[in-house]
Amino acid sequence: MTDTIASLVDHACLIVHGPDQQGVVAEVAALVSRNNGNIISLDQYSTDPEGGDFFQRVVFHRPNLVAAMPEIEDDLQRTLSTFGMTWRLVDMSVPKRMAILASKSDHCLLDLLWRHRRGELAVTIPMVISNHTNVAEDVRTFGVPFFHVPSQEGPDKSQSEAEILRLLAGNVDFVVLARYMQVISNDFLEKVGVPVINIHHSFLPAFIGAGPYRKAKERGVKLIGATAHYVTEELDEGPIIEQDVVRVTHAETASDLQRRGADVERAVLSRAVLWHAQDRVIRHGNHTIVF
Amino acid sequence: MTDTIASLVDHACLIVHGPDQQGVVAEVAALVSRNNGNIISLDQYSTDPEGGDFFQRVVFHRPNLVAAMPEIEDDLQRTLSTFGMTWRLVDMSVPKRMAILASKSDHCLLDLLWRHRRGELAVTIPMVISNHTNVAEDVRTFGVPFFHVPSQEGPDKSQSEAEILRLLAGNVDFVVLARYMQVISNDFLEKVGVPVINIHHSFLPAFIGAGPYRKAKERGVKLIGATAHYVTEELDEGPIIEQDVVRVTHAETASDLQRRGADVERAVLSRAVLWHAQDRVIRHGNHTIVF
Amino acid sequence: MTDTIASLVDHACLIVHGPDQQGVVAEVAALVSRNNGNIISLDQYSTDPEGGDFFQRVVFHRPNLVAAMPEIEDDLQRTLSTFGMTWRLVDMSVPKRMAILASKSDHCLLDLLWRHRRGELAVTIPMVISNHTNVAEDVRTFGVPFFHVPSQEGPDKSQSEAEILRLLAGNVDFVVLARYMQVISNDFLEKVGVPVINIHHSFLPAFIGAGPYRKAKERGVKLIGATAHYVTEELDEGPIIEQDVVRVTHAETASDLQRRGADVERAVLSRAVLWHAQDRVIRHGNHTIVF
Amino acid sequence: MTDTIASLVDHACLIVHGPDQQGVVAEVAALVSRNNGNIISLDQYSTDPEGGDFFQRVVFHRPNLVAAMPEIEDDLQRTLSTFGMTWRLVDMSVPKRMAILASKSDHCLLDLLWRHRRGELAVTIPMVISNHTNVAEDVRTFGVPFFHVPSQEGPDKSQSEAEILRLLAGNVDFVVLARYMQVISNDFLEKVGVPVINIHHSFLPAFIGAGPYRKAKERGVKLIGATAHYVTEELDEGPIIEQDVVRVTHAETASDLQRRGADVERAVLSRAVLWHAQDRVIRHGNHTIVF
Repeated sequence: MTDTIASLVDHACLIVHGPDQQGVVAEVAALVSRNNGNIISLDQYSTDPEGGDFFQRVVFHRPNLVAAMPEIEDDLQRTLSTFGMTWRLVDMSVPKRMAILASKSDHCLLDLLWRHRRGELAVTIPMVISNHTNVAEDVRTFGVPFFHVPSQEGPDKSQSEAEILRLLAGNVDFVVLARYMQVISNDFLEKVGVPVINIHHSFLPAFIGAGPYRKAKERGVKLIGATAHYVTEELDEGPIIEQDVVRVTHAETASDLQRRGADVERAVLSRAVLWHAQDRVIRHGNHTIVF
Repeated sequence: MTDTIASLVDHACLIVHGPDQQGVVAEVAALVSRNNGNIISLDQYSTDPEGGDFFQRVVFHRPNLVAAMPEIEDDLQRTLSTFGMTWRLVDMSVPKRMAILASKSDHCLLDLLWRHRRGELAVTIPMVISNHTNVAEDVRTFGVPFFHVPSQEGPDKSQSEAEILRLLAGNVDFVVLARYMQVISNDFLEKVGVPVINIHHSFLPAFIGAGPYRKAKERGVKLIGATAHYVTEELDEGPIIEQDVVRVTHAETASDLQRRGADVERAVLSRAVLWHAQDRVIRHGNHTIVF
Repeated sequence: MTDTIASLVDHACLIVHGPDQQGVVAEVAALVSRNNGNIISLDQYSTDPEGGDFFQRVVFHRPNLVAAMPEIEDDLQRTLSTFGMTWRLVDMSVPKRMAILASKSDHCLLDLLWRHRRGELAVTIPMVISNHTNVAEDVRTFGVPFFHVPSQEGPDKSQSEAEILRLLAGNVDFVVLARYMQVISNDFLEKVGVPVINIHHSFLPAFIGAGPYRKAKERGVKLIGATAHYVTEELDEGPIIEQDVVRVTHAETASDLQRRGADVERAVLSRAVLWHAQDRVIRHGNHTIVF
Repeated sequence: MTDTIASLVDHACLIVHGPDQQGVVAEVAALVSRNNGNIISLDQYSTDPEGGDFFQRVVFHRPNLVAAMPEIEDDLQRTLSTFGMTWRLVDMSVPKRMAILASKSDHCLLDLLWRHRRGELAVTIPMVISNHTNVAEDVRTFGVPFFHVPSQEGPDKSQSEAEILRLLAGNVDFVVLARYMQVISNDFLEKVGVPVINIHHSFLPAFIGAGPYRKAKERGVKLIGATAHYVTEELDEGPIIEQDVVRVTHAETASDLQRRGADVERAVLSRAVLWHAQDRVIRHGNHTIVF
């Protein structure tokens, strides 16, 4: 269920993670209740009821949430530490700040900007950064700041990455690579300090790396796909958030696949962004739990 | 998640339904916990957090469940009656008894028998009843009793329905119409006393009534579908459990649609049966909540 | 396969329709060959090889097509009239002129404008007409003229329709209703003289008329859809060009369905527009053949 | 469009392959026409209209086809050799003979046997061979001979393969590996002399080799799939005939994926078998053209 940010005043999202054990659901529910919260939705998952990892996402309504948050957080700290659980409490009326990095392709970028303007994504977009300038006017039409950071020549990208990091620093809660065609260095990943979501134009782990549509054509597959994932040090190996495919035939050229795939890419990326913005995606090792 | 019946010893499924109100989740979770249950999965839904209907399905593990059930039921009665909630507690290791009513078509029938033999459906099949005899040998090959109840001539089906009711009485927990081509009377529905699931060969509410594939061909639709639903007094108007579709083209004849649709029908029906057998489907007015 | 208009110089599309009979395929292929055409693609369909209706779409490359077209047309006239066939020969490098009628909703409109800018649709867009003004700026950003024709109060829409007809007259090859929320009169349909494509926000024939998402929610369906069709005198009864669906659950509200459905609508409409623009869609009674 | 074999008397399928060139479509159509054939369907594809490979499948009706075939074949030889084309003419009323190799899993095997009995597959099934005996009774219930050829211990499978080859020799037109869990040697492939179709339980090229569902679980994919392909010397690298996927979540275990995947496997394999039996699949290097 998606809601506009405005309707989410006094709504909190609580994420709990830790070792599965008897009574933890009751404890969390009791905690919400004694803090005058009314549970709106509750999802949970355990990798193994006997000694596995437990994950929970609880959305609750609590009048005057902002004033009460410190108190609820204290209670969470006291209660859940005895269970060895970690937790995160989010005021759902505060949209996450999302930066978009793009290159020449506009399909994923524009789709996110449209959906944002329609109120479909629970985010603000403080900036779009691109190593090209062709999308600048479109971005600014949406009232979003555009910054041009040209790609550095050669394999060392440290200067251009440093400039991007300066722009992002303190201003964003997560970064989306909307068909950003530059490899991100591990150094960048460490310094950026917020989650980075990428859209890969294949059904991972098939066709890892460059030129996936060309590879798909060469292999003669009957479906092509796209994968949204968190970026980690290993290229195209990060935790998968969402995937989808579309049927193709022998008659379609590699450029047909590219055009058909663009529709899948923007759909998959927009779902991944929405779910991340709503704290529905929990990372666990190289996996995601998507509630 | 599907599990074989054998692995579900000491697993209970609790269904709760009633007016949504603060604290009810905590109350149920505490109840499970104080009865030494460890929650395996928990799903809930509220039609409206303010004054809506609340539905919950909790699966929990409890050593020596059978011995403890009366005690847990007492606790449920005491606890939930104060909230005005109704509830149902199910021992998940006891498979539901499913009767299948069929006619000449074997695709839905055989698919259920196969899946049952593979251990995919959490049911036993005490009998198959048909108004034809062509499937008798197949059914008995699966070790399932087959009864032939010929259709009564004319509009009055009371005698053949009475014979079916005598066979079912006390022996089944639900009935599946696996392309059973006889209209069920309201009188039968009242007397059978257990849920009846039907598979309709169209994407309801499109093409209600007889000959949906012919109607689909005439209308020139680009997708055809199937719908599994609970049978109610209103033909093809009962609560929908599951639906799916498949893409077709102008080049396919009505009999092609029938053949293509048969695959959708058996897939949709098998999902509906599995979910019903696992108490995942809750009826609410003319809707279903499927956890 | 989609191609940009530029790459389609010297490409012709020939549509043939008439009574099926032996030798017609050979005759058409020979005709193309003796006019120095090289067949790129060929699709055909017969409602019945014995006395049915025959439909064919042939794309061929012919150097200096424009100069040769009168000659080819003469040959077609001579050759196919003996078979009782009708035909249409199209220079594929000439894009069709598409007018878009819209209301407040922008998702279908913007998707068409954006695909057009990317070169995905083989059309020009001489104008967008809306009974609202909220989309004016967006439309003009794409370099497309915007005309505001307010809806006439009351049931008689003849004046506003007349104004729309004046704008369209002579300027367009087909009209797309991109969630245009006004009922089109039969008088308008007769006078406009070009095909009109509509996107209906349900899986027709389910939920005909107004409020389909509300009706879908009330009926409790598990899939929602959209249908692109040619507009005829009978509301929502015209020949279906394309349909698609998306899975929904009990937890989604009518407004969730609306948001989810918007993605299906724009995808379905864009496919229908592309196929129409490429002369892939042939109307036959209340059906379409889509090659 | 599928037709029963019986309705295909006097129907021929002509497959043509060679260098694309102007006039070839006309030539083939004229040839069919002058041999008194009435074209029922015609599909064609060219990898490149300028100097590419041309593929065509023509189905035509010709009274007294059997008597006329030698004459038509002579005409084909004379006509198409001048174009440098190869061709194949098939009497569609003669079903292809399909052997099935299976192991313990029965889902793909039973689905093929059942579809065959319903008349959905244009084949006869002269034998099922398995390295296990658990499916013997089921196979014989369908009236199909069952042969048990135990797997040879150790890496050398030459003796058991030789026994299988003796059973197949002269008796079959193609072989289907319906979840046959033995690696086929290159020597076997050379000697068998007919196409061999395999169903791989992943969306190739993802998760090549053993244990694909386990690998899919480990990688955390959101869709799992199956691939039907022709078997070549390179394991899991042969030309893909058909693929499909189904959506899964974090909550599903590797054995859930296996159960869910089984439905995709049998659906994908049955489509591949049907299309192969109808001569719809043309191999071209490591690709397939599927008409």
